[in-house]
Formats: sequence, C-alpha cells, structure tokens
Amino acid sequence: MSLPKKMKAVVLFGKGDMRLIDDYPVPQPGPEEVIIEVDACAICGTDPKILAEGWPNHPPYGQFIFGHEYAGTIAALGEGVTKFELGDRVAVEPHKGCGVCDNCRDGLYTTCLNYGNLERGHRHYGFTANGGYAEYAGIHLNCVSKIPDSMSIDVATLMTTAGTSLYGIRRIGGIQAGETVTVSGPGPVGLMAVLLARLLGAGTIILTGTRAERLEIGAKLGADIIINATEENVVERIMTLTNGFGTDVVLECAGLPQAQIEAVEYTKKSGRIALIGHHKDPVPLDTKKIVLSNLSLAGSRGEGERSVARSIALLSQQTIDLLPLITHTFSLDEIHPAFETAEKRLQGAIKVVVKP
Amino acid sequence: MSLPKKMKAVVLFGKGDMRLIDDYPVPQPGPEEVIIEVDACAICGTDPKILAEGWPNHPPYGQFIFGHEYAGTIAALGEGVTKFELGDRVAVEPHKGCGVCDNCRDGLYTTCLNYGNLERGHRHYGFTANGGYAEYAGIHLNCVSKIPDSMSIDVATLMTTAGTSLYGIRRIGGIQAGETVTVSGPGPVGLMAVLLARLLGAGTIILTGTRAERLEIGAKLGADIIINATEENVVERIMTLTNGFGTDVVLECAGLPQAQIEAVEYTKKSGRIALIGHHKDPVPLDTKKIVLSNLSLAGSRGEGERSVARSIALLSQQTIDLLPLITHTFSLDEIHPAFETAEKRLQGAIKVVVKP
Amino acid sequence: MSLPKKMKAVVLFGKGDMRLIDDYPVPQPGPEEVIIEVDACAICGTDPKILAEGWPNHPPYGQFIFGHEYAGTIAALGEGVTKFELGDRVAVEPHKGCGVCDNCRDGLYTTCLNYGNLERGHRHYGFTANGGYAEYAGIHLNCVSKIPDSMSIDVATLMTTAGTSLYGIRRIGGIQAGETVTVSGPGPVGLMAVLLARLLGAGTIILTGTRAERLEIGAKLGADIIINATEENVVERIMTLTNGFGTDVVLECAGLPQAQIEAVEYTKKSGRIALIGHHKDPVPLDTKKIVLSNLSLAGSRGEGERSVARSIALLSQQTIDLLPLITHTFSLDEIHPAFETAEKRLQGAIKVVVKP
Amino acid sequence: MSLPKKMKAVVLFGKGDMRLIDDYPVPQPGPEEVIIEVDACAICGTDPKILAEGWPNHPPYGQFIFGHEYAGTIAALGEGVTKFELGDRVAVEPHKGCGVCDNCRDGLYTTCLNYGNLERGHRHYGFTANGGYAEYAGIHLNCVSKIPDSMSIDVATLMTTAGTSLYGIRRIGGIQAGETVTVSGPGPVGLMAVLLARLLGAGTIILTGTRAERLEIGAKLGADIIINATEENVVERIMTLTNGFGTDVVLECAGLPQAQIEAVEYTKKSGRIALIGHHKDPVPLDTKKIVLSNLSLAGSRGEGERSVARSIALLSQQTIDLLPLITHTFSLDEIHPAFETAEKRLQGAIKVVVKP
Repeated sequence: MSLPKKMKAVVLFGKGDMRLIDDYPVPQPGPEEVIIEVDACAICGTDPKILAEGWPNHPPYGQFIFGHEYAGTIAALGEGVTKFELGDRVAVEPHKGCGVCDNCRDGLYTTCLNYGNLERGHRHYGFTANGGYAEYAGIHLNCVSKIPDSMSIDVATLMTTAGTSLYGIRRIGGIQAGETVTVSGPGPVGLMAVLLARLLGAGTIILTGTRAERLEIGAKLGADIIINATEENVVERIMTLTNGFGTDVVLECAGLPQAQIEAVEYTKKSGRIALIGHHKDPVPLDTKKIVLSNLSLAGSRGEGERSVARSIALLSQQTIDLLPLITHTFSLDEIHPAFETAEKRLQGAIKVVVKP
Repeated sequence: MSLPKKMKAVVLFGKGDMRLIDDYPVPQPGPEEVIIEVDACAICGTDPKILAEGWPNHPPYGQFIFGHEYAGTIAALGEGVTKFELGDRVAVEPHKGCGVCDNCRDGLYTTCLNYGNLERGHRHYGFTANGGYAEYAGIHLNCVSKIPDSMSIDVATLMTTAGTSLYGIRRIGGIQAGETVTVSGPGPVGLMAVLLARLLGAGTIILTGTRAERLEIGAKLGADIIINATEENVVERIMTLTNGFGTDVVLECAGLPQAQIEAVEYTKKSGRIALIGHHKDPVPLDTKKIVLSNLSLAGSRGEGERSVARSIALLSQQTIDLLPLITHTFSLDEIHPAFETAEKRLQGAIKVVVKP
Repeated sequence: MSLPKKMKAVVLFGKGDMRLIDDYPVPQPGPEEVIIEVDACAICGTDPKILAEGWPNHPPYGQFIFGHEYAGTIAALGEGVTKFELGDRVAVEPHKGCGVCDNCRDGLYTTCLNYGNLERGHRHYGFTANGGYAEYAGIHLNCVSKIPDSMSIDVATLMTTAGTSLYGIRRIGGIQAGETVTVSGPGPVGLMAVLLARLLGAGTIILTGTRAERLEIGAKLGADIIINATEENVVERIMTLTNGFGTDVVLECAGLPQAQIEAVEYTKKSGRIALIGHHKDPVPLDTKKIVLSNLSLAGSRGEGERSVARSIALLSQQTIDLLPLITHTFSLDEIHPAFETAEKRLQGAIKVVVKP
Repeated sequence: MSLPKKMKAVVLFGKGDMRLIDDYPVPQPGPEEVIIEVDACAICGTDPKILAEGWPNHPPYGQFIFGHEYAGTIAALGEGVTKFELGDRVAVEPHKGCGVCDNCRDGLYTTCLNYGNLERGHRHYGFTANGGYAEYAGIHLNCVSKIPDSMSIDVATLMTTAGTSLYGIRRIGGIQAGETVTVSGPGPVGLMAVLLARLLGAGTIILTGTRAERLEIGAKLGADIIINATEENVVERIMTLTNGFGTDVVLECAGLPQAQIEAVEYTKKSGRIALIGHHKDPVPLDTKKIVLSNLSLAGSRGEGERSVARSIALLSQQTIDLLPLITHTFSLDEIHPAFETAEKRLQGAIKVVVKP
C-alpha cells in the first residue's frame, strides 16, 4: 500500500478560519508511528473552541489539522511498529505522553509534565500535533487500538468519548456493584457514562439535565431515573430517591457551575464525585460539606489508563447499539455545516461524524 | 404477627447425625435482631463438612441448627430495629462481626478477631450460632438485606453465594473494564463469578473445569470460552488465547491444588488472582513466578464489604435468570435426600434448596 | 475502685453559658462502655464554637458536658468489656458509629449515617453525648486506646489531634516515600500534620501560614521550608521550589478560602489535596484546573480508620517531644481563662490543656 | 568532556568466565541515553547467578558487561536529554520498559511485556543490556536519578537495593502508621526494608533470620525485636508478641521456603505479605489459611513505581548512616575476590562495592 503525495485536509489558518484544502502533504510515519487512512472523525465539544481560540502550543496556523476522535485503517507503518499490520481497522486516542517524566512513568500519561513539548516526545493529537480531519493522519502507536470486525468505523469514533467517561469512573475508584450513580449532563460524555455505569454494575442510575430528548436517550442507554432540572429541584429529588442519604457516586459531565455545586450537595457521606466536565470560571463549592461529609472529588483529564482500549474491549463484548449517539454524518467537504450542526446542536445533534 | 412456640428444625446431634425435629423452641429476637420465617435455605458446599466434622465453637450438639444461605420474611423485630418491618422479604449473610476489634472497625467483619466469641458479639450463623434449616431463624440486622419484589425467594437464597463471588472480585481490586477474566471451577461460586464478571464489565471470560454440563451453563451465564481440563491443557490453551501473555485476572473457585498451581502459571505479569476456593492441604505454588511476574494473590473470606447487599442491588437491575442454578428443591422433611443430592451432585445438581 | 456519686464538671447551660458545677452525677458504664477518670482534656478549636452556638442533637442544656480530647485512667468497666482493666492509662477519640449503617459496616464510622441518633447507637462524645471536661467521663470502648507508659497524659490529649491529621493523610492515599508535601495552616492540626508527614516518609515538607512563631515551631517539627503568606506569594514560591510542577500532596489545615484556592493552584498535575480544615462559606475553586490537571481532593472527617490508635502506635515508636505543642495548662476551675487563652491565642497559645 | 575510546570492563565470556579487560570500546549515548562514568558498583545477590548461569537474552558472551547497582557522574548526553547536565552525580536502576506495552503504559515497567526485546526498546541493564562493572556505562535517562551532594557515591549504589525494598512495601499498599511489620531475611534487601519500615511509620518492627551479626545490624537500623530462627520458633514467638493475632504486614526478603511458609502462618487475618525474595522451587503454602484469613500476597518485581528516585528523596531527608551496610570495597581489578567475598559472605560481608 503506497501513500499518495497529497491529501484533502481541514486546516486552521487562524482563529475561526478553517479551510478544506486538497493539496496537504500526506504525512510520513516516524519511528513508532503509523499512518491511518481516516474513515471517520467525530466532532468533539472542544473542537469548536480550538477553532475559535486556538490551543496552547498548537501547530502553526496554515499547517494545523485538528480533530482527535477518528478511526480508520492502517496505511503505513513506521520503524519499529510490529503491533499492527497494514489494513488493520483502528480507533485512536489523542494523548501521547513523553514517557520520561514522573507522571508518564507512573502511567499518568494524560498529565504528562512535558505537555506540548514536541522535542521531549509529548503529543496531543488534534491539539498540539496534527489530527484527523484529513484523509490521512500520522500518530504514535500508543494512541492506536485495533477494533473488532463487529465494530463499525462510525462507532469506533466514539471510543475516545467512551474513554473519557471510563477514565472518570476509574478516577473515583470504579463503581462498586450496586452503587447508586448519578450522571449530570446528558451530552455525549454523559450519555456514554450512563451506558458504562450500566455495563460496569451500577445499581440505580440517575441522569440529570435540561434537554428532554437527550434525557430520553439516556433512559434507553440505561438510566433508571431521569431528572429534568428545568422541571424539578435536582437536589431535593435525589435526596428523596435515596432516603435522604444521597448518591454513592456522581459522574459530573455537564461542566456547569450549578451542576458541580449540586453534586456536592446530593452526594452521600463518604461518596465520590468525578469531575469530568469543566467550566472556565471558578465555582463556589461547599468545601465545609466536602470536609464534614468526607467526600472525594477527582478531576479527570482525558482518557487515561488505556481507557480507550478498555472501552473497545468492553463495548465489543456487548450487543449495545451505539449508533443512536451518532445523529449526523457529513463528508469532509461539508466541514462547515458539520461544525454548525454540532455546535448549535441543530436537529437534536449529539455526535456529528465527518467522513473524509 | 405472633410467633409459635415450637417449630420444625434440622438439628445436629453429633458428627454425621442430623435429625429433623418438630419441637424446637422458636427463637426470640434479642436487641438489634430479627426473626425470619424461613421460606427457603440453600445447601452450601460447606454444609456437608459441618455435618461430618462439626465446626470450631459450634453450638452444642442437640441444639445446633445449621444452614446459612436462607431467605424469608421478617416475623419479629428485636429492640432497636427500625430498618425493617414485619413482612419484609429478605436474604441473609452469615458473618456478623463483633464491631469492636481492629478488623471490624476497619470494615473487615468476615475476619473479625473475635471469631466464635459469642460474648464479644461475634456470630457466624449456621456455624457458631444457629442458622436456617428451620421454620424460623434469629439473626442480627447487619446480616439481613431486603430483596425487591421482582426477586423470588429461591433466587434470594443465592445471594450469599453471589456475595462470596463478589467479594473475591473486590479482593483483587475489582475488574477493570475489558479485562480478560479466567474463572476456574464451575461450582455455584464459580458460575456466579462468571455471571458477575459479565455484569461488571469483563472483556473475554474464560471458564475452566472438568464437568461438561456445568461448563455449558457457564457459557450461558456469560463465559466466552470454555476449557475442559479433562480434554485440554489449561495453561497452554490460555496462553495461546492471550497471545502468550496470560489473563489479567483469575477467580479461583475450584479450591483444588492443580487449579491454584495453574492459575499462577497462566496469569499475566502484574495480574491478580483471587483465591476463593480452598483445599485442606498446602499447595506447592511457584512463588518465584509470583515474585518475578509481580503477581497479586488475595484470599477471600466470606461475603465481606456488604457484598450480599451489593449483589442484590446489582442482580435486581438485570433481567438475569438465575433459576437454572437451582436444580433441585426439597422440603425440610427431605433434608437427608437433599443433602445426598447436593453432596454427590446427583442428577447434575448445582444448587439444592430446602423449603421449610 | 468505686466511683464517687458526684463530680466536678463543666456544663453548658445555654449558648455561651458554660459553668463549672461540683455536683454532677458521676456516669455509670453501660454495656461495652468504660468510665475514665479524666486527667487532662485539651481544648479543640471546635469547642468555642460549641460553646457559642451549640451543636445539632447536643444533650440538653443543663446536662451537656463537652470536651472530646481527653486522657486519663480507666475507673470502671461496663458489661462485656474485656479489652481494658481498671487503672489502664488511655486516650480517646470522639466518634462512635452505630455499627449498623452502610458506612459503619464499611469501616467509615466518622461518617455514620445515623449521626446524632442515640437510639441507633451513634455517639459523638463532647458533641451529641457527654465528653471530658469533668472528673469522670463514660465512653464506648471503641473510642478508647491504651497509651504506653512512656507517653504522658498531657501528650495523650494530643492523640485526637494527631488522629485528625493522620486521617487526612490516609484520605489522599497516604504519603509515598519522598513526596513533596505542603501543609497549609500551622494550627495544632497543621503542626501535627508536619510531624506526621516527616515520620511517614515525606521528602521536602513545606509549611505555609501567617504567624511567624508557629511557622518556626513547624520547622522544629520537620518542615524544611517555611512560607509566611504575609511576606511572600505562596503560589509563586511553591511553583519556584518545585521547578514549576507544584507539590505532590497538600494537607490543607487552615480552613480558609484563600488557602483552599491556592492549594488547587500549587498542586502538581495528578496531585492530591486533603481538605482537613473547613470554612463556613462556599469557596470558589478552579474546578477547570482540577479537571485538566487530574487533581484529587478528599475531605477528611474526624479521626477515621482507627487513626487515634495508629497515632499512638506511631508516636510511641519515636523519641519526639510533643510537649512544645502544649503551651498552657489550667485547672478545671480555670475553664473560662483557659478558653479565652485558647480562643484568642493569648501568649502564643497552641494547645491549651485543662486538668480536672 | 570527551570520552576516551577504550575502557576497563568486567566482561563475561561464558558461564563462570568473568574477565577484566582494558580495551573495551567506551559506549556512545543513543537518543535519550547518557553515559555515566562509574564511580562504584555494588554486587547484587543476583550477580553470582548471572556469572554462573547467564541470563535469558543476555548480550553475547565476549561483550556482556554486567553489574546493575552503580553510581557515578554523567559523562556524555545523548540526543534529547535535557534533564541532566555533564557532571551530575547520579544513581541508577536497571529496568527500562518498552514504553508501549500495556504494562508500561500502566506504569508497571518492571513487568514490561517486551522483556528482553531490544528492538522494542526494553532494557534490563546488567542483564539483557550492558551494565556497570566498567569505567563507563550507557543507560536510558529513565533509569538515572540525581543524588544530592550530601549522599556519597558509595551510599548511592545502595539506592537500587532501597528501591527493591521500597517497591515491596508499595506492593502491599504501603505501611499504615503504627502497623506491626515483620521483615524476614536480614540480607541487604531485608535490612533496607527494616530501615524503610522505620522511616515510613511502622509501629513495632520484628526482624527474623539466622545470622546473629546481621540481626544486630537490623536492630541498629530500626528493628524493635530480633528473632533468631536457629534459637526460637519464629511463628510461636510472633504469635505471642502479637497477642495471638499475628503481624499486620510481612516483608519476606529471605526467599526461602520455610520463611514463606511461616509468613503465611504468622500473618494477621486480613494482613498483607510482600514476597520480595524468591526461591527456585515451588513452595507449599497453606492456601486454606490464605483464603480463610483473607490474606493478601504480592510478589514484587524490581524497583517499580520510581522507587529508586523515591528512595533517594526519602533517604536524603534523613540523617541515616547507611555506610555500615557497605562492609567491603574493592577495585575493579579485584573483581574476583570481590565476588568471592560477596558470594561466600566472607568476614560478615553484607554489601560489597567495586570501584573502577
């Protein structure tokens, strides 16, 4: 399989300036890297922010290809790659640690202490190195996982999202069998968190949010109880549901101040909160409650602890239909309407996938 | 609801001497105790041993009612019991710690340091205190859990078994999403371990054993791969299946030397082994492999960490049919054939339930 | 040893109304309880708040003896107490869980779900049940630990404080050998945290605060670096000291908003923060930093996981002079000036001890 | 600083055939590697075995330089090394994971799944790649840690040993404050384990072994109680010392069957055993005790979790005199008598250091 010289790619030329070009040089694989022929790339909630504001240490405008939730087929192998063969169908994750800093050596590669330092070997594909809105993408083998034949390429683009939700669950010590789990925020990460909580042995799963349609999808994915925050007092309802004790675990995926504040309120004594979503401003939390109720809060960065590979292994075992999460598909030529659909959540958009 | 004065009960009068009598005094509830009208009691693999050999600190022969996997209805409440109401349907667990020793204070009540010491408040129902082969049984409220309406009483007798398997899983840090899990020994605890591994997010599940029928039941409960040790070399097969790396997790439920020895052999570097089954004699383990491969082994005593309650919460969420595990049902009058069926595994017996 | 009928005791008669009386009935030991002849009781920072405002579910005014950091000698044994003998020298901890709720069964007795419920067996001595500002005090045996001959009674009153600091350390997974630990707030709990961090294998220990004298005591107890927040920018200094990475661990004992906010700022990626001190109002925390840097925050309630007993075992092994932490000693008759000294930190007061 | 072309080195030419040559080519640093001018290299207990039997995947005889406990000065920097400067004084560790396999990505680099595979980037210096019995040694920067000015080079050679003991402690979840710790086997790893247990907050430390002199050194390093297995029944003595409960933690460093068997016997219910030493043959362990007492056993491979760097950080904080562990020093020319002294423990040899 020989690579072409030029390819179509969505390139950022400046803040808010995203252009599809057709003569971007096809990347060559470096040592321990592969080239993936991209079959599909999902739009992450972070992508519109990168488009609007850039990202610290991003590749130079004019060369910067973003997109980090992609899947495809191995098209070229760099030196030393024995784990994959040409033609392997794969999903990816964006964080590649330096392998040398204290955190990387401890297995905490999503919090590499050399973040953004290309020389030291760190890569955050789609952020500080090129990503997947293109026909081909180069990536380190640590960020690549095979998918089984039974998994479609479109569903494979969801594995990065699944990895994010799964790492949040890992960060609070996993879910113990039968625990009451509250997920706040029915975006893609939150909905995936509902599904994973179900597959990982939660007892009652409560989903809170404001959009009725998404809450209903959550119910299909495994939520037992739906709370629409525009209609009910979330804290009161959860305290009632839990006999006044609160939930064992919260997976906070909304990233909104109110959701984070409430999570502290409705968590059981000695309960655990994963903070997966985030908000730009400080959030006034009841730290007295945190102390007196012995709560644990864990921020969750990215898809650590091989959570993408674990998600593939888990979701391949199940006869779960993830396709409902993918509401829209566009060609790469339609990148602008694709972004508009995703960002404005047009027509009930959840996950929007772009296909080169 | 007033209790009768006398009841039917299976009483041990000496080694191997088990008699059904009909004039045993119905127990009265002490503080923090309840009386359960027993609807069903399953025969545990330990019961024939208790019958044959007794148990350290057992109640005096002539008064000793054994049986510890029972379920029924709350028939009387002792002083200070507010958690239950008369008529509640419940399942039980046998270990009640003293609440005072270091282990109990740490939550490790199945390894209470005052084991067998009735004065200090320890109880091991069916072992050092009376159990459930009777019309009524008294028990501390810590050992009692409500079951939902959707769970039958027969299935409820399996919750002690489920708790045993679940605690083994907890003892090795739980199962991480997608891990390869090998269960050895398709007895009730092993089959339940297969089911739980499935519900808790395992990837590939391998079940090893020697009885084809039970292995097939394991396949129905969630095992992906069945290895009949009478037909294949277990270690070789597992190493092949795992690309030479071995399994991430082993749940050893056979309690046979060969099974324990092999588990050490086929576990992945840095993998974890739960020892749930046990054997009377020392077992020659390859401790060099344990050291050089950084293996973790955790013995698992009983149904710690509220694993019975957790099992109920988990299994109630699922539409799992556990009834196939219950192969035989007898009345209390038939206690002798019931034991013979269970002990000799007549007619493919897995779980045998006795109904007062 | 027979107990007298009446005793001196400091009784709360209403908000701000604390009176020493000499005819309070000496308590009798209930089952699993002991009576301690109190030799010394230290004033906790919470005591002035209890005096001023009361406490939820406190004993009725006119009968309420507070004080929970006491030590003394066993003077009477209740039914079922075999762990102690008359004359044993002991220290205490205030939390006695119900032993029945989910948290107690998990070993999390400082977050008992039956807090304040005397009928259900919960006790918080000095808060919801009588404490130690008296000649005698009754207490459950779970809350009592023997001290070695080498430990003075005055030092023994510090074991509750040590337990509080130690539990905070446990809550963030302990200190790994050589980690950089920042303690904020050089009050008794913070100073004890410095000492414990030293004894538990910390690398560099940084202590931040505003009072030069206390910071100097911290240096004697093991802090390598002192930062006076009135003279330096704490965050900048710590980032410089740690090559821009931040500290591995924070033990936040100040309970001030600024200290909590800064702790989030100067913690290393994937670092851990124990929140031990608390503040009455919500604190605006940078939850975005918490998420993106994968931080863990753990509130720490009381002296859980047998931390008082562990502290005694640890501090008995060492030739540490804890007496400098006890700056003032008063007789019980001088309870009012004792409280004034403690509350206003007169004459550099750190720990003030009252001796019946 | 320019490197010479040739150097003295101890080269293995075959089983049992170790020769000092003076014209070995000085290694050049590859990417992410440094060259260390070796000032001292300690003899590990494994070295005589490598000499006698070789090691799987060792470098070809005639080129194989072994030795892996060395310290020295940075003499050359490979491409991409910014963490060190020429002249830095450093200690080393032998395991360098591939950085790509599942275990390496999880931070478990001492159990790299590509062990011995040079192409995939794995190195085990002194075993599968060249080590430190030479004037210069090349090594990956992950395996190198700076030492403070206050630490001598001779003591620095002990950091690999310290890392081994420390990792064993980490493998059983660390030592909780005040726990009773039994160390079996007063070799270098065991003696270091005693010291570390002391520095990490153990309560009573018990040391068992057969050589009176070494046991006495253990007492100086922090053991409270010495048990000479040639004079006393170890299990009985420990059970008596612990009121019949057994020790909380065992650090098994002897690697002898009897020691491992006894460790299972004298461990407390729910206690933890680190297996650090190992024996060539299977060891008959009482797995029934392991199960019924809920014991945890963790094999411990190498110096994982950055334990060498952590040891340096810990031991630099203390005014501990480690020199007594180094009983003998030889020049590289005296490699044969050095090995004889170490292997036969001549003149009470504990650690023998060779200086190029």
